[in-house]
Amino acid sequence: TSTTHAGRAVADFHPQFTGLIDAEFSTFDLHEAVEKTDIIFCALPHGKSAAIVVPLLEAGAKVIDLSADFRLKEAGLYPQWYNQEHPSPHFLPEAVYGLPELKREQISKARLIANPGCYPTASILALAPLAKAKLVDWKSVVLDAKSGVSGAGRSLKQAFHFPECTENFKAYKVPNHQHIPEIEQELGILAGSRPCLSFTPHLVPMVRGILITAYVRLTKELTEPDLWELYEHFYEGESFIRLLKPPRLPETRFVMGTNFCDLSLRYDQRTGRVIVFSAIDNLVKGASGQAVQNMNIICNLPEEQGLKHVAPLP
Amino acid sequence: TSTTHAGRAVADFHPQFTGLIDAEFSTFDLHEAVEKTDIIFCALPHGKSAAIVVPLLEAGAKVIDLSADFRLKEAGLYPQWYNQEHPSPHFLPEAVYGLPELKREQISKARLIANPGCYPTASILALAPLAKAKLVDWKSVVLDAKSGVSGAGRSLKQAFHFPECTENFKAYKVPNHQHIPEIEQELGILAGSRPCLSFTPHLVPMVRGILITAYVRLTKELTEPDLWELYEHFYEGESFIRLLKPPRLPETRFVMGTNFCDLSLRYDQRTGRVIVFSAIDNLVKGASGQAVQNMNIICNLPEEQGLKHVAPLP
Amino acid sequence: TSTTHAGRAVADFHPQFTGLIDAEFSTFDLHEAVEKTDIIFCALPHGKSAAIVVPLLEAGAKVIDLSADFRLKEAGLYPQWYNQEHPSPHFLPEAVYGLPELKREQISKARLIANPGCYPTASILALAPLAKAKLVDWKSVVLDAKSGVSGAGRSLKQAFHFPECTENFKAYKVPNHQHIPEIEQELGILAGSRPCLSFTPHLVPMVRGILITAYVRLTKELTEPDLWELYEHFYEGESFIRLLKPPRLPETRFVMGTNFCDLSLRYDQRTGRVIVFSAIDNLVKGASGQAVQNMNIICNLPEEQGLKHVAPLP
Amino acid sequence: TSTTHAGRAVADFHPQFTGLIDAEFSTFDLHEAVEKTDIIFCALPHGKSAAIVVPLLEAGAKVIDLSADFRLKEAGLYPQWYNQEHPSPHFLPEAVYGLPELKREQISKARLIANPGCYPTASILALAPLAKAKLVDWKSVVLDAKSGVSGAGRSLKQAFHFPECTENFKAYKVPNHQHIPEIEQELGILAGSRPCLSFTPHLVPMVRGILITAYVRLTKELTEPDLWELYEHFYEGESFIRLLKPPRLPETRFVMGTNFCDLSLRYDQRTGRVIVFSAIDNLVKGASGQAVQNMNIICNLPEEQGLKHVAPLP
Repeated sequence: TSTTHAGRAVADFHPQFTGLIDAEFSTFDLHEAVEKTDIIFCALPHGKSAAIVVPLLEAGAKVIDLSADFRLKEAGLYPQWYNQEHPSPHFLPEAVYGLPELKREQISKARLIANPGCYPTASILALAPLAKAKLVDWKSVVLDAKSGVSGAGRSLKQAFHFPECTENFKAYKVPNHQHIPEIEQELGILAGSRPCLSFTPHLVPMVRGILITAYVRLTKELTEPDLWELYEHFYEGESFIRLLKPPRLPETRFVMGTNFCDLSLRYDQRTGRVIVFSAIDNLVKGASGQAVQNMNIICNLPEEQGLKHVAPLP
Repeated sequence: TSTTHAGRAVADFHPQFTGLIDAEFSTFDLHEAVEKTDIIFCALPHGKSAAIVVPLLEAGAKVIDLSADFRLKEAGLYPQWYNQEHPSPHFLPEAVYGLPELKREQISKARLIANPGCYPTASILALAPLAKAKLVDWKSVVLDAKSGVSGAGRSLKQAFHFPECTENFKAYKVPNHQHIPEIEQELGILAGSRPCLSFTPHLVPMVRGILITAYVRLTKELTEPDLWELYEHFYEGESFIRLLKPPRLPETRFVMGTNFCDLSLRYDQRTGRVIVFSAIDNLVKGASGQAVQNMNIICNLPEEQGLKHVAPLP
Repeated sequence: TSTTHAGRAVADFHPQFTGLIDAEFSTFDLHEAVEKTDIIFCALPHGKSAAIVVPLLEAGAKVIDLSADFRLKEAGLYPQWYNQEHPSPHFLPEAVYGLPELKREQISKARLIANPGCYPTASILALAPLAKAKLVDWKSVVLDAKSGVSGAGRSLKQAFHFPECTENFKAYKVPNHQHIPEIEQELGILAGSRPCLSFTPHLVPMVRGILITAYVRLTKELTEPDLWELYEHFYEGESFIRLLKPPRLPETRFVMGTNFCDLSLRYDQRTGRVIVFSAIDNLVKGASGQAVQNMNIICNLPEEQGLKHVAPLP
Repeated sequence: TSTTHAGRAVADFHPQFTGLIDAEFSTFDLHEAVEKTDIIFCALPHGKSAAIVVPLLEAGAKVIDLSADFRLKEAGLYPQWYNQEHPSPHFLPEAVYGLPELKREQISKARLIANPGCYPTASILALAPLAKAKLVDWKSVVLDAKSGVSGAGRSLKQAFHFPECTENFKAYKVPNHQHIPEIEQELGILAGSRPCLSFTPHLVPMVRGILITAYVRLTKELTEPDLWELYEHFYEGESFIRLLKPPRLPETRFVMGTNFCDLSLRYDQRTGRVIVFSAIDNLVKGASGQAVQNMNIICNLPEEQGLKHVAPLP
């Protein structure tokens, strides 16, 4: 549905669908939406989603919400990180944070999925095995994050004007990016207590892809093979997690256009740090692909359905 | 001089000089070189430079060496980080590490300058004020480094083939990049004891530019204004250091083609970390520009001579 | 199969297949190849393919050859355009030039398909309707071609080293690119006599995509609506041809990763020229996608099978 | 001067000048402007420049106008190509089209310079020697033009949003780009009669640079050496024209950041066409660099002053 483009062909605005999809945008009608669909994907801006999602739920719909509006469990964090009060905090408890590798069971029964942000997906998957095993010295954790420009959406800003964006590298929103509380919340649930970590996003002159470089000290001495065993065990059977053993390291191009999260790690004996690398396509595993994965789980479809893409290399 | 291209026009291999420079490559003749020059720039690969530099020095030349062969004070580090014994360790003590902002006085009197590596230049300048003031909790230091592809030189490798390099982001040489000991050595000299820090380089799909994101905990509580005062004082009068105050942050395009090092910092109260950003052009302040700056100092010329370029934006 | 990598996992060399394909490279064994396969794709370099293809044919295989070795009907053109005599000219007559939009019938019965080059695919499809209708003043035809860097293959060359390739635009192989005789041959078959046209390739700093800008004067006065009618009629029912009506124009990103050829045209009344634009993904419709399309035709499968990709925008 | 940013530091909006230029934007005051300056550069949008330039001239200023407002001699062309009547057509006759290689003498005496557009600069310089020698069969001329994105200016548009602009190639404004009449006017003056030629601009995913590929048939049979002699003679002594002999061809990176126009040509015996290549930096020789060159001529300064830049390769 589209308010502005109702009646126009989808392919007029997304030309890649020319010759493939005949659909037109229609206006949003709540009752029609609820009746005609099994699940509704809602991809409105942060702060504007709740106003649509709540009526949909109340009318009986199942919703996968791609905004941040239902990701945080504590309503009190919204004013701090999103500059506004949450309009319907009583829905926060039942929303399930839609990261299938951690919450498959809950997702399958949910009527409201808070689809994770792109940075949190890559960050949480990087550290989940260590968090779960209570191995992390949280005071030591630094997440240095790098994202392609599509992470910023389609809105025009000077910073994303091609001549000011290509052949450039910079950090932004330092030190308070709004994805931090999501990461801390979910890793905290695994670890048993909420961490306070550093997260610094950077802009890479490419379209898609996120790479997280996570620096961690452990609370216990482990070898690199121990760590690999831990990760292999934790992610056993996961279709969309690929563990790349040394000498391999994740590269964003390996996951481009796919729902994979590629992970690798190194134990640096000199400094005593574990360095974990995590790569996803911010628009797929970091957004719509993960939403489809969640839908598959809810609808009891094969989890990989519609998601078995191969990265177009080169 | 060039062994392979002797007799050919420089502009044939560096077409940007067409119509500007008529010079031809000549073969290298040690005595002629020493007689006809005031200073010799030596830009041979690591491990091959010492064999030329030592005879030049013995024949009375002054040399600015752009390789790593004279950067480390401890000969014992060469086998560990460069996989070979140092051929002439007795020259290491007199070589001056050519970072003018730290060693202007020594440079002015030196006959052998070890011109710093690109990553070390940006890394050391980022932390020097804190190191000198003994404010750094060294166990906390993480340097997350990002570089354009020209940092890898002109040699052909699959990883730098355009279709495998563009639209991609990855880490490399984890966790043992050969620039680490330089960084630790020089920060250690300032701090009074050699640190052991994490340094992870990444490859950015752009030609030029390095951005260092440095994470540091302090040994003493300071405010952000205190930190700015410290940096302003430390770099007072430096022509090539620009301190970018909030909300500004360094971007590699601001220093592209220039000898500037742009610095900024944030104090993150949530995590108690200082985050310092440092940007240079790896081919200018990170290599040849710094070499010219060193020459200017040695020859008692204005330090900015030939180095007042403006970044070509956009 | 691979001579050098036999026994190694395909995913080691093509990391996008990690977790998706378990296959290993095997050595090439002619009899095993013929027995175990319905069709063999042969993607050897030009000049090296015939030596493998001929024995395969003689052993009873059907072959889709992606090299240029069987594309030209006149053996005499090989020395002129490829600098070598053709080793087995007696196979040239039976080879079918595998452009399904023009030769579907012949392809379906062939045992040897000469899969078209990337530039010829885009060029021929741009002008085929006009050629067939005998409307072209051939002396007027200029094909100005632009290609992404992947068109040059995976071999390392200075010209494709990222720092020398990005942020740059240039022409190459002027005026004698080896794809010219293919274009002239196939348009000549349609037109009834062999044309002699200008074709100039350029290198675009992007990975994939070809855009052809074709300038043509007509032998008869037509309006733009007449021309659109001609193109619509000619390409009626073609799954992989998309005609983009004004104000739309082809963009390479619309076809990236797909088997589509997007076409548009304008009639310029001022100059009396028709300008036709044609965009393909050089690696898909310009190579392997078209090969699969040919296989589908030969094997009597739905022609779109395995080829219904959507361009990953943005 | 700046209306919106008056009182703010120039370096705030053009960060490359940080530490180099202390100037602030001031409001525009006509009388102050005329009194305090020798020459005024006017870089307003097309259609808005005349309203400022005319009062400046009337107050006695010399003006170099970078807009299109005074480039066309026939006022009647403005409604056709720029969709508006010209407000002060009586100034068109005295405006000098500021292409120094063609009009050095007139420029030196002018009070109003119409600084040429970027495409016209590259196009006219490509064909000027042939036009002057009356060798061109004008009906045959095709100019296929490619430009980096900075040619579109700093205004935000969806088409220049990084994710929709990188890794893409397309044509635009077909067949009626507003630079066509400039090109035809100036070549017509040289040739003795106004041509009508095809000109198609394309967008290259890079920041700076224009490459023109010009296709021409001659009215007389000439060899390639004849043509080179013609070009060498025509451009003898020109500081900013570089003729690149075969096998060399212009590349936009060779002129990036410089005021050079690199030219090369090939005579294609097969088709009887001459193909001329012309490369400039659209922001330098195509705009501000040429404006400075014009200023130098008017002020009787060395023509190269302030313009001897070397392209930053790689």
